[in-house]
Amino acid sequence: MNNSAEHTADYHFRHHDIFGIEQLSAPDIQHILNTARSFREISARPIKKVPTLRGKTVVNLFFEPSTRTRTSFEIAAKRMSADTFNINISTSSTTKGETLIDMVRNIQAMAPDILVVRHSCAGVPQLLSRHVDACIVNAGDGAHEHPSQALLDMLTVQEHKGEIAGLKVAIIGDISHSRVALSNFIGFTRMGAEVRVAGPGTFLPPGLDQFGVKICRCIEKAVADADVVIALRIQKEREKDSLIPSLREYSRFYGIDEKVLQGAQPDAIVMHPGPVNRGVELAPEVADGKRSVILDQVSNGVAIRMALLYLVLGGDRTNSGQERQI
Amino acid sequence: MNNSAEHTADYHFRHHDIFGIEQLSAPDIQHILNTARSFREISARPIKKVPTLRGKTVVNLFFEPSTRTRTSFEIAAKRMSADTFNINISTSSTTKGETLIDMVRNIQAMAPDILVVRHSCAGVPQLLSRHVDACIVNAGDGAHEHPSQALLDMLTVQEHKGEIAGLKVAIIGDISHSRVALSNFIGFTRMGAEVRVAGPGTFLPPGLDQFGVKICRCIEKAVADADVVIALRIQKEREKDSLIPSLREYSRFYGIDEKVLQGAQPDAIVMHPGPVNRGVELAPEVADGKRSVILDQVSNGVAIRMALLYLVLGGDRTNSGQERQI
Amino acid sequence: MNNSAEHTADYHFRHHDIFGIEQLSAPDIQHILNTARSFREISARPIKKVPTLRGKTVVNLFFEPSTRTRTSFEIAAKRMSADTFNINISTSSTTKGETLIDMVRNIQAMAPDILVVRHSCAGVPQLLSRHVDACIVNAGDGAHEHPSQALLDMLTVQEHKGEIAGLKVAIIGDISHSRVALSNFIGFTRMGAEVRVAGPGTFLPPGLDQFGVKICRCIEKAVADADVVIALRIQKEREKDSLIPSLREYSRFYGIDEKVLQGAQPDAIVMHPGPVNRGVELAPEVADGKRSVILDQVSNGVAIRMALLYLVLGGDRTNSGQERQI
Repeated sequence: MNNSAEHTADYHFRHHDIFGIEQLSAPDIQHILNTARSFREISARPIKKVPTLRGKTVVNLFFEPSTRTRTSFEIAAKRMSADTFNINISTSSTTKGETLIDMVRNIQAMAPDILVVRHSCAGVPQLLSRHVDACIVNAGDGAHEHPSQALLDMLTVQEHKGEIAGLKVAIIGDISHSRVALSNFIGFTRMGAEVRVAGPGTFLPPGLDQFGVKICRCIEKAVADADVVIALRIQKEREKDSLIPSLREYSRFYGIDEKVLQGAQPDAIVMHPGPVNRGVELAPEVADGKRSVILDQVSNGVAIRMALLYLVLGGDRTNSGQERQI
Repeated sequence: MNNSAEHTADYHFRHHDIFGIEQLSAPDIQHILNTARSFREISARPIKKVPTLRGKTVVNLFFEPSTRTRTSFEIAAKRMSADTFNINISTSSTTKGETLIDMVRNIQAMAPDILVVRHSCAGVPQLLSRHVDACIVNAGDGAHEHPSQALLDMLTVQEHKGEIAGLKVAIIGDISHSRVALSNFIGFTRMGAEVRVAGPGTFLPPGLDQFGVKICRCIEKAVADADVVIALRIQKEREKDSLIPSLREYSRFYGIDEKVLQGAQPDAIVMHPGPVNRGVELAPEVADGKRSVILDQVSNGVAIRMALLYLVLGGDRTNSGQERQI
Repeated sequence: MNNSAEHTADYHFRHHDIFGIEQLSAPDIQHILNTARSFREISARPIKKVPTLRGKTVVNLFFEPSTRTRTSFEIAAKRMSADTFNINISTSSTTKGETLIDMVRNIQAMAPDILVVRHSCAGVPQLLSRHVDACIVNAGDGAHEHPSQALLDMLTVQEHKGEIAGLKVAIIGDISHSRVALSNFIGFTRMGAEVRVAGPGTFLPPGLDQFGVKICRCIEKAVADADVVIALRIQKEREKDSLIPSLREYSRFYGIDEKVLQGAQPDAIVMHPGPVNRGVELAPEVADGKRSVILDQVSNGVAIRMALLYLVLGGDRTNSGQERQI
């Protein structure tokens, strides 16, 4: 295993903002994973706190409700001693007719260091970054990207498989509506894995091949010899949208059970971004089985977010080396 | 007065979780009260903060709204320098179809030290404890137990009366729907007090005598010679449920006013878990009168919660002495 | 410029609570502005944190939703290392029938140092102060006062103009419903400025002249030779109330655009308490123009709130010099 592939001596992490995996090179991704791995043990200590980001202001700016991602960023920030502030937009002044840009300029005037942004529209983190000095970390923008999720997925795979390069990764389900899928396509292919997808035709957007992803007709083909099987979450609203006939039928054709996994590598791992609809995307025996690494993903999520907060603030370099990357 | 009854030298607090008073022996209760008493002065200092729980993660996991109990736990945690996180379930992913157990396993994967849990169903804290390593502190489960409330009640009684053993404690009101009542029955009888109850027949559940509690036909009998009178809160919904004809009638028969208190000990104290419906459970002159120790209860609540957070984490022993108590 | 007018040697800031600008003398106001100015650079440091209020408990008690003012107070408190607690009343026990006074007594029993209070009724901060030991800072009470807003406005004016005395300040818009207007009338006149107002007749309350304010028939008269132009926010509900015919018509007569500003001093500044309704109170070219100091107001808001939290707790004097001012 070579988890901690050394960089060349002149490597510098240069990103002021994390909008998506798209902007990250393979060395960038590996550097984030290595940094996260070094932070992972902080959460295992009796005193889970380091002074690294003391006196830094991290604002969680969530325009969509999210307990799990917001809590993970909040825990990451507090374990590094940052001050955190949650701005939940349902209670905020966007309801008072203020524009999004005026709102974020106001927040900027209070001198935050990092804005962690979730929004239902793709591109909002980039838009906001043009109006603030604070670093932006995208916590999910529409069906575009969810970079911290893909990074925690990659960290989990490296933890269990050693190397990402050469692995076969199957991603199953609602590709069209998933920011997790897009970030993972880019991340895993960039790290040298082979990515295959399967899902109902209504969930497969056109142009998938541009990501270097192999589209399979059935789940069995996608999973054949796979080292990693990632199930995407089905939003129950899709049933009402008539994109799938029913959750039951979805489950029969695209639910992952032990039988489907017999075609995978004997030591294949199963992942899911959560929350799981048991009996829909994953059979209960798979969700709770020995292949499931879903809870490792959650633990790694805290470590990845610690790494992102640390790195965008220039943690491992002098500030002079920092450049704005938009 | 002998508030701080010494334990035998080999006493150890051994509880990893606090589900209820039921699990606590009289020495356990006394040890918690003594610990809380030693913490009480922290809240009276100019700098209300000790480093005791620095780097510990306390998650308030509230499936029922509660400002007062949640704030009390949050203040207790922060005064001991713990990091606190509030997860309010109305905004959480249980609405996304995730099971309760999957949800708490996800939280566990972020390495919390303590989960403070409130839920409308009895037994949820025990259920969750089977799936997490974190210590669980029950902040109220259905009509079952509310141990921190009973402990703060006992601390308040010890503060004013010196000893609990031998006291006569009257508990008045809606026994059936009260987790405060059940925790207090167990706690006060275990500490050697005589407990009497009175309330409308629809509020007195069968089997009360198994707790060693004396059921009185009228409030006057319950209060006769009492040292402590505890009024329980009436949920206004009970009126709609037809369990009481009206709040006015309830108040006429079971409201506590100065006249009723004439039958009690001259130095009897009056308690209420709050929030008080003035003119229903308590006449205003009683709520604000010299017998009322309601605000002492609130202050003691912070101290009790500091003690519980401290003790479950093994504050006063080496970890080797700790055993899981389920 | 003489921003930091020295006090006489025997000046002491003596206020235990900040209910409004009304209670503050000119030396008090100047002292708050000087203190805020000295704190402003903390938010510009790499480590934005000083230990000044370590171990102090600041409770944000908001009976009206407010993201921006609450966040500003929370950032101010945390940058001074205080512990902060947000109590949002929509989720609180006032819905359980508890009286306001019982509620605040309960909070007091948990030993907070400062309560930052916002309420839709004028006078609530004073009312509550009679029942608590904690210092009260008014964060807006009905249409009465919003002292931290007026102080940050004055700080912004001093920053740009050097002295407030002798300036001409135009305040435009919905005077009747604005706590910002009232606090600014008192503050700016007390500091020696000339204040003029203009707005639709339905927005001009009787008795304005008692504040020493000049009422103008049209916006052009109010703005003539003005050094400072403050636009007040229009609540969109006013349209439904039939107090203005339409936002469009309001904008035509009272919106501030470049043409209106041609009558002001060449270096006049434009302020707004936010959030701005673009195209209603301010033309977009004004909101984003070189005269606009709206974002300076927001930055100064954090500094003013740091100063208020610091001063009410007796930051710059021995406690022996403190007297309760009601």
